[in-house]
Amino acid sequence: MKHSRSASGAAAATMAAAALFVSAPAAAQHPAPELAALRSAVRGYRTTHEGAIVRELAALLAIPNLAHDSLGIRRNADALISLLQRRGLTTRLLETPGAPPVVFGELRANGARRTVILYAHYDGQPVDASDWATPPWSPTLRTGTLADGGTVVSLPGDSAAHIDAESRLYARSAGDDKASIIAMLAALDALRASGIAPTVNIRLLFEGEEEAGSPHLAEILRRNATLLQGDVFLLCDGPDHQSGRQQLLFGVRGITGLELTVFGPTRALHSGHYGNWAPNPAVLLAHLIASMRDDDGRIAIAHYYDDVGPLSAAEHAAIRALPVPDTALRRSLGLATTESDDALLAERIMLPAINVRGIRAGAVGAQAANAVPTEARASFDFRLVPNETPAHVRDVVNAHLRAQGYFVTSDSVTMAMRLAHPRIARVQWDSAGYPASRTRMDLPISRAVIRAVSDGIGSAPLVVPSMGGSAPSYLFEKALHMPVVIVPIANYDDNQHAANENLRIGNLWNGIDLYAGIFARLAADWPATQR
Amino acid sequence: MKHSRSASGAAAATMAAAALFVSAPAAAQHPAPELAALRSAVRGYRTTHEGAIVRELAALLAIPNLAHDSLGIRRNADALISLLQRRGLTTRLLETPGAPPVVFGELRANGARRTVILYAHYDGQPVDASDWATPPWSPTLRTGTLADGGTVVSLPGDSAAHIDAESRLYARSAGDDKASIIAMLAALDALRASGIAPTVNIRLLFEGEEEAGSPHLAEILRRNATLLQGDVFLLCDGPDHQSGRQQLLFGVRGITGLELTVFGPTRALHSGHYGNWAPNPAVLLAHLIASMRDDDGRIAIAHYYDDVGPLSAAEHAAIRALPVPDTALRRSLGLATTESDDALLAERIMLPAINVRGIRAGAVGAQAANAVPTEARASFDFRLVPNETPAHVRDVVNAHLRAQGYFVTSDSVTMAMRLAHPRIARVQWDSAGYPASRTRMDLPISRAVIRAVSDGIGSAPLVVPSMGGSAPSYLFEKALHMPVVIVPIANYDDNQHAANENLRIGNLWNGIDLYAGIFARLAADWPATQR
Repeated sequence: MKHSRSASGAAAATMAAAALFVSAPAAAQHPAPELAALRSAVRGYRTTHEGAIVRELAALLAIPNLAHDSLGIRRNADALISLLQRRGLTTRLLETPGAPPVVFGELRANGARRTVILYAHYDGQPVDASDWATPPWSPTLRTGTLADGGTVVSLPGDSAAHIDAESRLYARSAGDDKASIIAMLAALDALRASGIAPTVNIRLLFEGEEEAGSPHLAEILRRNATLLQGDVFLLCDGPDHQSGRQQLLFGVRGITGLELTVFGPTRALHSGHYGNWAPNPAVLLAHLIASMRDDDGRIAIAHYYDDVGPLSAAEHAAIRALPVPDTALRRSLGLATTESDDALLAERIMLPAINVRGIRAGAVGAQAANAVPTEARASFDFRLVPNETPAHVRDVVNAHLRAQGYFVTSDSVTMAMRLAHPRIARVQWDSAGYPASRTRMDLPISRAVIRAVSDGIGSAPLVVPSMGGSAPSYLFEKALHMPVVIVPIANYDDNQHAANENLRIGNLWNGIDLYAGIFARLAADWPATQR
Repeated sequence: MKHSRSASGAAAATMAAAALFVSAPAAAQHPAPELAALRSAVRGYRTTHEGAIVRELAALLAIPNLAHDSLGIRRNADALISLLQRRGLTTRLLETPGAPPVVFGELRANGARRTVILYAHYDGQPVDASDWATPPWSPTLRTGTLADGGTVVSLPGDSAAHIDAESRLYARSAGDDKASIIAMLAALDALRASGIAPTVNIRLLFEGEEEAGSPHLAEILRRNATLLQGDVFLLCDGPDHQSGRQQLLFGVRGITGLELTVFGPTRALHSGHYGNWAPNPAVLLAHLIASMRDDDGRIAIAHYYDDVGPLSAAEHAAIRALPVPDTALRRSLGLATTESDDALLAERIMLPAINVRGIRAGAVGAQAANAVPTEARASFDFRLVPNETPAHVRDVVNAHLRAQGYFVTSDSVTMAMRLAHPRIARVQWDSAGYPASRTRMDLPISRAVIRAVSDGIGSAPLVVPSMGGSAPSYLFEKALHMPVVIVPIANYDDNQHAANENLRIGNLWNGIDLYAGIFARLAADWPATQR
């Protein structure tokens, strides 16, 4: 899919971003020439180093990076330390027993009074290599997407001058999330080559088990709270807007997960001989799911919405200002309609959601036997909005199951339990869930980040109150007491978490511009009197 | 599970069976010594040939027998022809293009004026070998059931004198339905060894695609109607009563099947970014299933019960006379309750039923991805009672899906179709469904079969108006114009249609007694003046 930019959408978003600056007196203080010089310098460096930048990314992508592969993870961490030291950063490996090391790097700026922390992760989602067109850790450049028939081309030499922006680099973590790391480093290189000094202290934090649910992140942040002090935390992960536009996101949905199993007879029974006598667990499960939410996503569980607050006027306004990709998305996805009468995607992801990830009971198709299955299982993910907690979701869902007549247990189901309870629901709640978080978009630092990004890329980014996906932002807020802004650079069609993950090269160029803007402009865009 | 016999249940059933003989004047004409001699001769033969009989069954079970595996099926048919020829039967393979051959064998009795046709099937249900304790086509003898910790023992030698009746032989089709075939042949051997001649002409008919829905059976019967003439058709398939008692069944439920698929986006979508915007097919399917029937088996589809008639007084009486295994069954199956407030199993199987055989959508457990699945599929079997037809079931279910807002198609789902219809239900109806059938229990031939079985096994069988399971009895009635009686010999806990199918060896011994009774006694029990 091409990243065509809607002119009317861009205009609307510029207006929305501009509205956030109305009360920012610093907005007019930065003369255009300085910005033009910055952009020209960064672009000039990049266009003469495209081959070297892509090769540096490809070398990093070639190192297998599954969180549980401790040898591969260690190789990634060592490579990252080298990349940082080569740029003159002070580095440390933050070690925690049983966890991949967190890579830390620091670059102090002369006279800087503000510190920005940039987070990315260097581990990747599990792969099923058989689904990939080329191996996941053999970075492969194509002239375009696989879907559009992009053909493989050699990686350019270090001195190659130009790589087409529509090229795609295929590899695990190409978009999620190693591109962010290389873009940060290339931005530092571009500034240094141009004699432009960062105006803020820079602290980089690269995690190695984000895709495994960040089980040690809270502990690592707590242990290193002093080292990680700063004024704003930029979570550099995720894809751009479905319109292809740069976006900044000020929140995430929280998440928790559930495996729910209901039970029939202890052995599969002939469906003729026992067919409407033995309880059918697939039918029981269908009724349970139907009782939890309707086809339009409305949740019917008592007290589910009790702790959900309304959107602020600023959030409403920001959503209304976003481009609307819905119609094009529906067309590409084969959907005649979407939930709740084609309600806007941007509005829907501001709501709590229950998603059924999967159902398994008996068998279908050629494997189907005429039998009453012994059990039926469903897997759910719950997306949380601010004020909701995983504990509350767990409590109201468990209560709902009980209200449907189920004995709820998280233990193994014994014969005694079966004979004591007409209906049993086994619940296995995800222990790694976390709540949502949102940063106010009208804080001075929020405005400064929007402005610095705009300075870097030369156009106003889209400003989104929250993304639909989840990230552990709450950990940074809670442990480090900093506002969090999400700064994604990958293309939205990067197949993240799936086979044939890829990065659109133009998105890497855009990322370099963006980080250069933050490093060079954030202090100037952030009046000293405000915080 | 042990097959303890309830004395009170047996007494009640004997009374019920006796009631059917009140008008049968032949009942007293057979002197006890003849019966005692028959039973003694058959038992004597069997006890000295137990090893050989079980080995012959095991050899037949070792041949893979899925209906679509044409090579395996042909090997089964060839083996059966050999087994019949070895006993002096005239044999034929009834061939139909694209179908497994039907094995036919005939043994004429001197002076016999009546012909009995015995039907069995030699194909088996599909297997998922990973669910089996031992491979499905590696017949394995155990000292008892797997559930009771039965341990594997070697198959006995041909000259082994005694195999414990509580032993179990594990293999696909051990109970369903190869045991019936071997029991018939061993009964012929026992009579021949004892110098007892059959009193009826015997025609054996072994089908090779019963578990695939008998798609060619009607055509085969029509083509061979002359060859298959006879006075009564014994359908030798199915399990014994849950009380462990021998039963004869005078009806079956009909059956049809459906694979139902509903659709979400054409590619799996991140459940955070698209989580309550894209329709979730697993949720749609759950609501559809919930709309079709409740947890208690009550069908909520309009006009579903329109053509269902009431039971006759004789059928009511027969049901009331049966032993009630429900409480013991519930206990063994880990069910605190059964559908519709513990309503009697024997009553429930006289009703129409919708069974969900399986559901597949997305993934669960460790494989679950935080994604909206692309489609969800359910497999159903529908059990029909007299007067219902597969066509009517199909029509009212399709109409129900439309009433829920679905576009119903049996074609492949195209992009144009997706974009034209908010909801699409793809229905793949089983083309091999068939209606129910019931034979009157008070016909002279019905009484004669009850009596001959009683003569063979030495006790009155239970008399059941209809079984819950399905068999294509209607085809025999329609094509061959004969009354059909079902004569099952397998243990009710044989795991038929499931993993670890097994035959209780005592049930094989009982089957030999039973068929010997039919072969040797049916003419005597069947007054010449009656039909």
